[in-house]
Amino acid sequence: MGTHSSGTELYPAGRLDQAAAAASRAGIGALLLTPGPDLRYVTGYDALPLERLTCLVLPATGSGLDPFMVVPRLELAAAQASAAGGLDLELVPWQETEDPYRLIAGRLTAAGIVDAVGSPDTIGVSDRMWAMTLLSFRHELPESGILLASTALRGMRMRKSAAEVAALREAGAAIDRVHARVPGWLRPGRTEREVGTDIADAIVAEGHVRTDFVIVASGPNAASPHHDLSDRVLGRGDAVVVDIGGTMPSGYCSDCTRTYAIGDPPAEFTAYYAVLKDAQEAACAAVKPGVTAEEVDAAAREPITRAGFGEYFFHRTGHGIGLESHEDPYIVTGNAEPLEAGMAFSVEPGIYPGPHGARIEDIVVCTDDGCERLNDGTRELIVVAG
Amino acid sequence: MGTHSSGTELYPAGRLDQAAAAASRAGIGALLLTPGPDLRYVTGYDALPLERLTCLVLPATGSGLDPFMVVPRLELAAAQASAAGGLDLELVPWQETEDPYRLIAGRLTAAGIVDAVGSPDTIGVSDRMWAMTLLSFRHELPESGILLASTALRGMRMRKSAAEVAALREAGAAIDRVHARVPGWLRPGRTEREVGTDIADAIVAEGHVRTDFVIVASGPNAASPHHDLSDRVLGRGDAVVVDIGGTMPSGYCSDCTRTYAIGDPPAEFTAYYAVLKDAQEAACAAVKPGVTAEEVDAAAREPITRAGFGEYFFHRTGHGIGLESHEDPYIVTGNAEPLEAGMAFSVEPGIYPGPHGARIEDIVVCTDDGCERLNDGTRELIVVAG
Repeated sequence: MGTHSSGTELYPAGRLDQAAAAASRAGIGALLLTPGPDLRYVTGYDALPLERLTCLVLPATGSGLDPFMVVPRLELAAAQASAAGGLDLELVPWQETEDPYRLIAGRLTAAGIVDAVGSPDTIGVSDRMWAMTLLSFRHELPESGILLASTALRGMRMRKSAAEVAALREAGAAIDRVHARVPGWLRPGRTEREVGTDIADAIVAEGHVRTDFVIVASGPNAASPHHDLSDRVLGRGDAVVVDIGGTMPSGYCSDCTRTYAIGDPPAEFTAYYAVLKDAQEAACAAVKPGVTAEEVDAAAREPITRAGFGEYFFHRTGHGIGLESHEDPYIVTGNAEPLEAGMAFSVEPGIYPGPHGARIEDIVVCTDDGCERLNDGTRELIVVAG
Repeated sequence: MGTHSSGTELYPAGRLDQAAAAASRAGIGALLLTPGPDLRYVTGYDALPLERLTCLVLPATGSGLDPFMVVPRLELAAAQASAAGGLDLELVPWQETEDPYRLIAGRLTAAGIVDAVGSPDTIGVSDRMWAMTLLSFRHELPESGILLASTALRGMRMRKSAAEVAALREAGAAIDRVHARVPGWLRPGRTEREVGTDIADAIVAEGHVRTDFVIVASGPNAASPHHDLSDRVLGRGDAVVVDIGGTMPSGYCSDCTRTYAIGDPPAEFTAYYAVLKDAQEAACAAVKPGVTAEEVDAAAREPITRAGFGEYFFHRTGHGIGLESHEDPYIVTGNAEPLEAGMAFSVEPGIYPGPHGARIEDIVVCTDDGCERLNDGTRELIVVAG
């Protein structure tokens, strides 16, 4: 394969250069990436988010300054042991009594990247950088413009490589294995919380490093899309929305929703569940390169509206997924961005008329001529013994 | 007890008014609190941090505008069911296609709180508000000054109420129960990661809702204070630093470090461990109202430096703890803030000369005449069979 990236590595070393070039195109003098998904994407380093500053400084291509990463002295060994330690990247430790913001500002200013006449004058900060960190940078670099790092990086992060799709496929299979075990835990007399504990344990047991969220929304709670867990006792006739996800060792996330019924649900529920299933199918069928995100949303919404349930589908159809559970692209009215091969996102319409509700969610990845679903458990209503 | 807060509630309803008064004193026109510890402290609402905006808008006392909380339409039921639903607080849901930043800016501007001639003109944002959120507010309120919410709230959050101290005491007891089980898991031939998995499970089993961090640093890894877990196999003669913590259902955090040895450790290790134990004891003995944070740091550092290990204690002595694992006050050189009764923080000196290291950490709370330790497992080196 020679020395160029073959796309088989999850965190290829070439990302630093690609991100520097993207910064340059976005008019950003330097990216300042603190612990979180952008930093991991660019370096592979899964740093702890702490109040002590860890920050990759990635000057735009052609700026004449090499990238470096500021790390607290006591994180130095961890940083060296991480994927970032294998990159061509200077690690700059700082002691408890030093000011790392001043250190970074000094290097950027000395290189003429910011606050120098006639130079690019904009820093690009991690989208989830903490306000306390951002205001400290603003204090040291008062004349710099500030953009979000996603201005430069979102295009890269949205288009998943083959290795990233493989990581998402593995995450999808792991969460499917958890859903396969859910019917065994849904018993009348148990609480949502008890079921949720079983599920959280299984998310880790099936290969995730961390449970990100567990929603077990039963009976009337199923009409609240983001209800998580309560002490409500499950009963016969309940519909139960189970929306769960975690993060894999790769850093990539899973997210899948299935709706279960304990014994026979109300007849009106069964009727709109069939509408929902068609809607989710229609939205997946609409996915292919060139179709816009909002067209996929419309494809899910149309059959639900036609059946008279439009007002009960009051959230967007989906969200991108990768190193974050929720990231670009968002599948929502107003997002006219055309899909491209490699974009991965959820397709998750719901109908919540109360006193019950339902949702079906798969992660899909746009392929050259359609989409691949990364979850493959049945989308039929799963009725367990009541 | 009448109607005033007795201090027995963890999240008393009076917090909203107290925070509004603190904002006023800090020269902040309105606090903008997104999901995280500040929002939970003020309202009791443990909101999910999501890309959809949830934000408490808390105008300063006397501004003439009542507080309100903007929530995504699909989080409305969860917000109503939370502690925030029991407060005198308008919940303002927004639909997927609305702009909640514009909504908030419009209300603040209409009330003359920001961007109006002669009015207070500064917003106070959660310290950990995401940059993407902060830049959206700045776009809508370009003329407003921006301060961190901690400018107003840190004084309140640092001085724990009796109920908060009780919650931290409960957290301390829970993590002590985990440490009591650690010797059974430290066996030659097992990996740090295997031990870490046992510990993570036990953190939840002993009453936490979530494991926040698990450090099992053995042999040479013990010389890296923030090493977390590796596949290194434990062997005879290893010293093992175990630094663990989680979050309780109350929202309050635990954090405790003990150092273990598998069989007999090297003689030089045993020698400096004795120094470390004295240093941790001396720092705890120094804690009382009026003593400054940096004096506690110095009390820990002095015996270590005197014994010739000063260069190997290269981190601060401690950090505050409460709804966050790390918060004010920081026990570090340069922090001349005097301690007061109710302040809770870690006392955790370490010595890391390599190829081994050690740390001892307790959470303490400053009392009227000294301090109470919230962890009470033995601080002697814990030698398990090799």
